[in-house]
Amino acid sequence: MRDVFIFCRISTHKTESIWYSMNTMQTLATLVSLQTAKAQVDEALADYFAGRRTESVTLGQNYTQLWRTLESLVMSGGKRFRPYMLLMSYQAYAVNPHLKTILPAALAQELLHQAMLIHDDIIDRDTIRYGVANIAGQYTQLYAPYLKHETDRTHMATSAALLAGDLLLSDAHALLYTTPVEPEVLRQATAIFSNSVFEVVGGELLDTEVSFLPKGTITAEIIARYKTASYSFVSPLTMGAVLGGADQESIRLLTELSLHIGIGFQLRDDLLGVFGSSAQTGKSTTSDLTEGKRTYLIEQFEQRASPQQQEMFMRAFHSQSASEDELSACKAVLIESGARAAVEAEIERHHEAARRIIASLKLADEPSQAFYELADKCLTREV
Amino acid sequence: MRDVFIFCRISTHKTESIWYSMNTMQTLATLVSLQTAKAQVDEALADYFAGRRTESVTLGQNYTQLWRTLESLVMSGGKRFRPYMLLMSYQAYAVNPHLKTILPAALAQELLHQAMLIHDDIIDRDTIRYGVANIAGQYTQLYAPYLKHETDRTHMATSAALLAGDLLLSDAHALLYTTPVEPEVLRQATAIFSNSVFEVVGGELLDTEVSFLPKGTITAEIIARYKTASYSFVSPLTMGAVLGGADQESIRLLTELSLHIGIGFQLRDDLLGVFGSSAQTGKSTTSDLTEGKRTYLIEQFEQRASPQQQEMFMRAFHSQSASEDELSACKAVLIESGARAAVEAEIERHHEAARRIIASLKLADEPSQAFYELADKCLTREV
Repeated sequence: MRDVFIFCRISTHKTESIWYSMNTMQTLATLVSLQTAKAQVDEALADYFAGRRTESVTLGQNYTQLWRTLESLVMSGGKRFRPYMLLMSYQAYAVNPHLKTILPAALAQELLHQAMLIHDDIIDRDTIRYGVANIAGQYTQLYAPYLKHETDRTHMATSAALLAGDLLLSDAHALLYTTPVEPEVLRQATAIFSNSVFEVVGGELLDTEVSFLPKGTITAEIIARYKTASYSFVSPLTMGAVLGGADQESIRLLTELSLHIGIGFQLRDDLLGVFGSSAQTGKSTTSDLTEGKRTYLIEQFEQRASPQQQEMFMRAFHSQSASEDELSACKAVLIESGARAAVEAEIERHHEAARRIIASLKLADEPSQAFYELADKCLTREV
Repeated sequence: MRDVFIFCRISTHKTESIWYSMNTMQTLATLVSLQTAKAQVDEALADYFAGRRTESVTLGQNYTQLWRTLESLVMSGGKRFRPYMLLMSYQAYAVNPHLKTILPAALAQELLHQAMLIHDDIIDRDTIRYGVANIAGQYTQLYAPYLKHETDRTHMATSAALLAGDLLLSDAHALLYTTPVEPEVLRQATAIFSNSVFEVVGGELLDTEVSFLPKGTITAEIIARYKTASYSFVSPLTMGAVLGGADQESIRLLTELSLHIGIGFQLRDDLLGVFGSSAQTGKSTTSDLTEGKRTYLIEQFEQRASPQQQEMFMRAFHSQSASEDELSACKAVLIESGARAAVEAEIERHHEAARRIIASLKLADEPSQAFYELADKCLTREV
């Protein structure tokens, strides 16, 4: 009953039905799938937003507008991959798993992710997310009648986005805290969580600064480690296991595993950003190059390229005016120099290490298989 | 021992000595003073920053730079008034108070405050705080050699400030989690805390929007209630009492009390912003007027002023080019119209209500006196 009360503090709307279903829920016979996880997380997210929307009414319609905007953005896209990983890892370790018991922790992962996306969009000056206008994009339109100067309009719309990100970051912590588990388990989970925020924010800073500071100690692998792997892989997988009662050695191994998958995932992402299929990924395969993004692929190229290859490369790299021919030639030298193969080899090294660790986890067949599939999916994906 | 471990996750540096002194600490014979609270909180803050600085080294010197900047800003000013209120309220209710036990919760109040100031400065486009360059101000200088365009430099410096605020907001929650009290007490404390973030962010949004949206439902009192009173008064005073074991009725009364003090504090602040002594407050007594800040004082004026007074007022209000004479005339009509007296009366109403509630709290003489002094200080202050 205590936990129900506290969850109500965060989201007062319809919580009874959620907690009723939690208490009466059967233990799942099989591991959660990404699809099932998404359905459950989306339902819980809808409930969370309905609660916050209701509470926001006390402050007036302007605040409700911000919550509506947040809700529509978060519900318009996202695979809920981090909550899935947390739930899957929890099931792998829990003796008697009750998935909905730890749903608040799964939601916390998603809210942190959304908060980071919102603040990342501010830093990148992006106004589109999931193919629709993001918070700043929507508020730019909303404020247009009242703010004639573009600078003011952009600034105020960005301010709304800044506050929206703060709300989700704070509520991520608040939701995590309502997870009805033993105090000691919860303390471990919150320590993992706050450490992941410390690391992702650091990674975000480095990723921002690497774009304009002189080449130095910031490497693409450090950024992949802290900006991507930490909060997107280490935190959900180890927190899930902690909530499931895993021992310290398992947590240590899972941390290693998550780093291999997470860093490999980012390297694959970098390759897809240049050599992927736009039709499949939905992302440009030229913007990383024309924007001069310093990925691991680019670092490998710089170590290997001949002066001629360097010269060819620089005609398109960090040049918004590069022609299609120059971009093709740029991609060609990335292959000819051996840079692409070096990245593939590094991904394979991470994949191999990941497989070795999974084998050592001594899990039952089904969860073991789920971890192998996770590694395969992240490291060999084409979208 | 469990709590020591968790606190170490947040701040690994010198924690042993802190916790040693906590465990061996004597119960204070007298209530904490603002001065004593500041000394203890500053020591704990220094320890927290030392820990984060040490941990940031793993991510490289750029991240350490951000933590150093944060540390120098936070340590350069601030009265630690919120931690003081939490500690005082805790002592008023705890049967056997151990001040340092709840120091993490006091620190959480301060970190939330600092996070809000940092993000508020971004929204207000300010680069000075506590008389020194704030995060954006310092990073503008730091990035100057690498970013020649002012727009880019400002944007990137602001991005560093955005991330810095995120760190403190997240660590405020993380520190609060480590307060070594009973799980149920901690759950109540975190619910109060996350609710205060929900309210202050909403108040911040309303305060931003009221400056350019058409006059409507956003009133100065709503903003004072949510932007100021909630996180600066309700949260520290009620959380302190919860940590001290106060009952629900006391918490309800303290919430009412905190709202009267907090809203009255803001109204006093508005008066000082126009009629105060710059020499004493260190703040301009014209900028609220020339920037067109829509305070409760202005609302009262609009309800009372004659057309001639309105005309006089508008020569200086929201006009950066107002002359000294126009500003003096503007202030004169604020008095003549009865607006200033109306605000004074409203403050007195809050003060009277506060005194009535304090009398009903049935506290011992010393804590009762501390609450009276708090109300007096906040509502009759001249600085």
